[in-house]
Amino acid sequence: MAAQSASPAIVAGAGAGLGRTLVSSFNDNGYIAIGLNRTVPNGAKETILAVDLANAHLTARKLLDLNGTHGAPKLVVHNTAKLVISDFENTSVDDFEAIWRSMVLSAVNLAKGVLPGMVETGGGTFIVSGATASLRGGKNFAAFAAAKAALRALTQSLAREYGPKGIHVAHVILDGIVDTEASRDLHGMDPARMMKPEDIAQVYLDLANQPKSTWTHELDLRPMGEAF
Amino acid sequence: MAAQSASPAIVAGAGAGLGRTLVSSFNDNGYIAIGLNRTVPNGAKETILAVDLANAHLTARKLLDLNGTHGAPKLVVHNTAKLVISDFENTSVDDFEAIWRSMVLSAVNLAKGVLPGMVETGGGTFIVSGATASLRGGKNFAAFAAAKAALRALTQSLAREYGPKGIHVAHVILDGIVDTEASRDLHGMDPARMMKPEDIAQVYLDLANQPKSTWTHELDLRPMGEAF
Amino acid sequence: MAAQSASPAIVAGAGAGLGRTLVSSFNDNGYIAIGLNRTVPNGAKETILAVDLANAHLTARKLLDLNGTHGAPKLVVHNTAKLVISDFENTSVDDFEAIWRSMVLSAVNLAKGVLPGMVETGGGTFIVSGATASLRGGKNFAAFAAAKAALRALTQSLAREYGPKGIHVAHVILDGIVDTEASRDLHGMDPARMMKPEDIAQVYLDLANQPKSTWTHELDLRPMGEAF
Amino acid sequence: MAAQSASPAIVAGAGAGLGRTLVSSFNDNGYIAIGLNRTVPNGAKETILAVDLANAHLTARKLLDLNGTHGAPKLVVHNTAKLVISDFENTSVDDFEAIWRSMVLSAVNLAKGVLPGMVETGGGTFIVSGATASLRGGKNFAAFAAAKAALRALTQSLAREYGPKGIHVAHVILDGIVDTEASRDLHGMDPARMMKPEDIAQVYLDLANQPKSTWTHELDLRPMGEAF
Repeated sequence: MAAQSASPAIVAGAGAGLGRTLVSSFNDNGYIAIGLNRTVPNGAKETILAVDLANAHLTARKLLDLNGTHGAPKLVVHNTAKLVISDFENTSVDDFEAIWRSMVLSAVNLAKGVLPGMVETGGGTFIVSGATASLRGGKNFAAFAAAKAALRALTQSLAREYGPKGIHVAHVILDGIVDTEASRDLHGMDPARMMKPEDIAQVYLDLANQPKSTWTHELDLRPMGEAF
Repeated sequence: MAAQSASPAIVAGAGAGLGRTLVSSFNDNGYIAIGLNRTVPNGAKETILAVDLANAHLTARKLLDLNGTHGAPKLVVHNTAKLVISDFENTSVDDFEAIWRSMVLSAVNLAKGVLPGMVETGGGTFIVSGATASLRGGKNFAAFAAAKAALRALTQSLAREYGPKGIHVAHVILDGIVDTEASRDLHGMDPARMMKPEDIAQVYLDLANQPKSTWTHELDLRPMGEAF
Repeated sequence: MAAQSASPAIVAGAGAGLGRTLVSSFNDNGYIAIGLNRTVPNGAKETILAVDLANAHLTARKLLDLNGTHGAPKLVVHNTAKLVISDFENTSVDDFEAIWRSMVLSAVNLAKGVLPGMVETGGGTFIVSGATASLRGGKNFAAFAAAKAALRALTQSLAREYGPKGIHVAHVILDGIVDTEASRDLHGMDPARMMKPEDIAQVYLDLANQPKSTWTHELDLRPMGEAF
Repeated sequence: MAAQSASPAIVAGAGAGLGRTLVSSFNDNGYIAIGLNRTVPNGAKETILAVDLANAHLTARKLLDLNGTHGAPKLVVHNTAKLVISDFENTSVDDFEAIWRSMVLSAVNLAKGVLPGMVETGGGTFIVSGATASLRGGKNFAAFAAAKAALRALTQSLAREYGPKGIHVAHVILDGIVDTEASRDLHGMDPARMMKPEDIAQVYLDLANQPKSTWTHELDLRPMGEAF
């Protein structure tokens, strides 16, 4: 697709793993995609910009800049996650706050920065990455599950408010391990049983292509054979 | 795609509306699709076969025949529905039984007829059409919701048993009115606010194409702006 | 409480275990409770009557008789269950039908026989016993989960239709093993980790006593320490 | 019940309405109940203490004091809520943060202050008040629903971690309007269709009395006839 006709896309939380693949996959499929991340990984400075998404002012300013340069985005993904696995007793109050800022407040800041422009320019797709913990507060997941559940509720509210204005808001429950370098190190799992980031990216692209007659608000993804 | 390489597909519940569109859409997209229905609509006798899906013996025999002619299917959809909207007091015991036979027993018969062959030949996709009532027993929907909820539970059990054997089992919640002649008559609704059967068919095709790394078990579909 | 002021109660599915305890516990707590069961256990013929609850005519006649003798019930419990644990391939079509008749059709027949009289005489409580499978179609539970999910949807529809008419309809999810002779034999489990039938009965009595300001539609019960 | 045998109870969020009734009702039913609230209402200074529950240090110190005076509590209720009804665009980032602090962080602080002592002294009951928004992110409820959903997930994690240690953790979904002065002013609703605080208090007392054989983790409450 010619560059001048490509639609702007934004991926919040693009430092490694899934987020970075979303950026490159979107760029390969008709979008001009920019990743936003607290830090910029080596070799990614053209497509990933540094911003603290938990900071309302900095995020607003960065999104305003992007809007000026590229126009309102047609596809936006919230993909930040800060996983802490720990029993409640050893999860500090600061952990709870840091996780909430990283995962929920960042989504609020992102939505505030992109949705008005998207409404004005005729719509688009806003996707939030969820997890098993979006539906279940498991043992040793209190802070992470509280944030993922909050994010799911926020996404539902956004869908109900912005759907009638032409914004397709979707929540994708990633119920399995995403195949990244970090997760290979952490889980020591057979990569054949992990979800490939490029396959997830395809689902996000499909969501962005759904016609207005049939929008999906929520779907789950897991590898074949994953217990659930 | 050349006929000899096309994969067999079966749509149970194909008399009108969505089911019939699924058959033609699958035929247009690389499948040899056959519909099964209690009665065969005019002009459809080449692609839709008559069978009472609630009858275990007749269904088993028909599926055995199809298996002999075309080989095990790669894509199977359960799409029968018998909608009764009535308060509990005026829903007869016979209504409850007829709806259960039409919607749940037919799925059991279908699954029993296709899954073993699909497992043997290396997998495939089995999709069940759900509805708003799959998740909610509403007022005046006792019999329909009981059947749709049963179907959802059955589909979950099948996913957990057959997923590890290579069968992708999915449940699609159609949370809105499908645009068919019958529903236009029944609801007197703006067609722009209905779901197009061909758009739903595309979602089913996408599910059948999902790689083993990322299978969706459940997703919802509704038209833009539909309240939920 | 003197017999003449006691309220009639009916427990459908009272052959053994929980059902029989519900009858005796209700009788000890201000009700004249009658159990209904396909067969009458030894020594229980005064409080348990034989009736095939899956048979609409026989159930209707028996409930009409009871209504004539005792008046409309104030507390009704549906507690029939037919547990089959088997993979889908080895669960026959007849199993699916028998389980549906025993668990779902029996509830329809029961509700049809008691609700009109309860509405006419000013209300009462209708409780359905659920299980883990009410919310989840697990591996090897296809037929049982389909029936329990159907029952939950039916109960929701009844709550929405009969609540405004003064009938408190509730669904209790028994998420654990009930301590009965049969389950001790089947599970070989430490009885201290099972739910006591008399403790469950107390919850049902509490539900029947809830004031109209605060009705519970659904609650779960599990023993301390049970994983969920 | 004589004062010396009464068990300590704590109600976090006790300024008005339900919280204040919980304190008095617990005091009338065998507990020595203390309310905690940011401000102390007139005439309540004996049973309600001022503390900013969103402040980790102040809350920890206050709970340590209470523990020293009364011993570890046997019944603890989290009941703080900060309701904002507003579309997303007009809900500020500060609103999101204030609501999260008031509703979620306060629960973390409370749990951290009471659970270790409760485990040490042999158990007790920890109840969290939920709402319709605990299950659903509705239009104009983004911040409130995000907090209530987070609280539900947190409560589930606590139940799974502390249940085996003898703490009964429960989540009560208040699906209706509580009859308080504030809600009468706000909703102009027939009080007969509201939930009475004293009836809710009775449910909380019943939860605290459940034997270890049958613990409820979640239940809903709504007035007769309330649509759901």
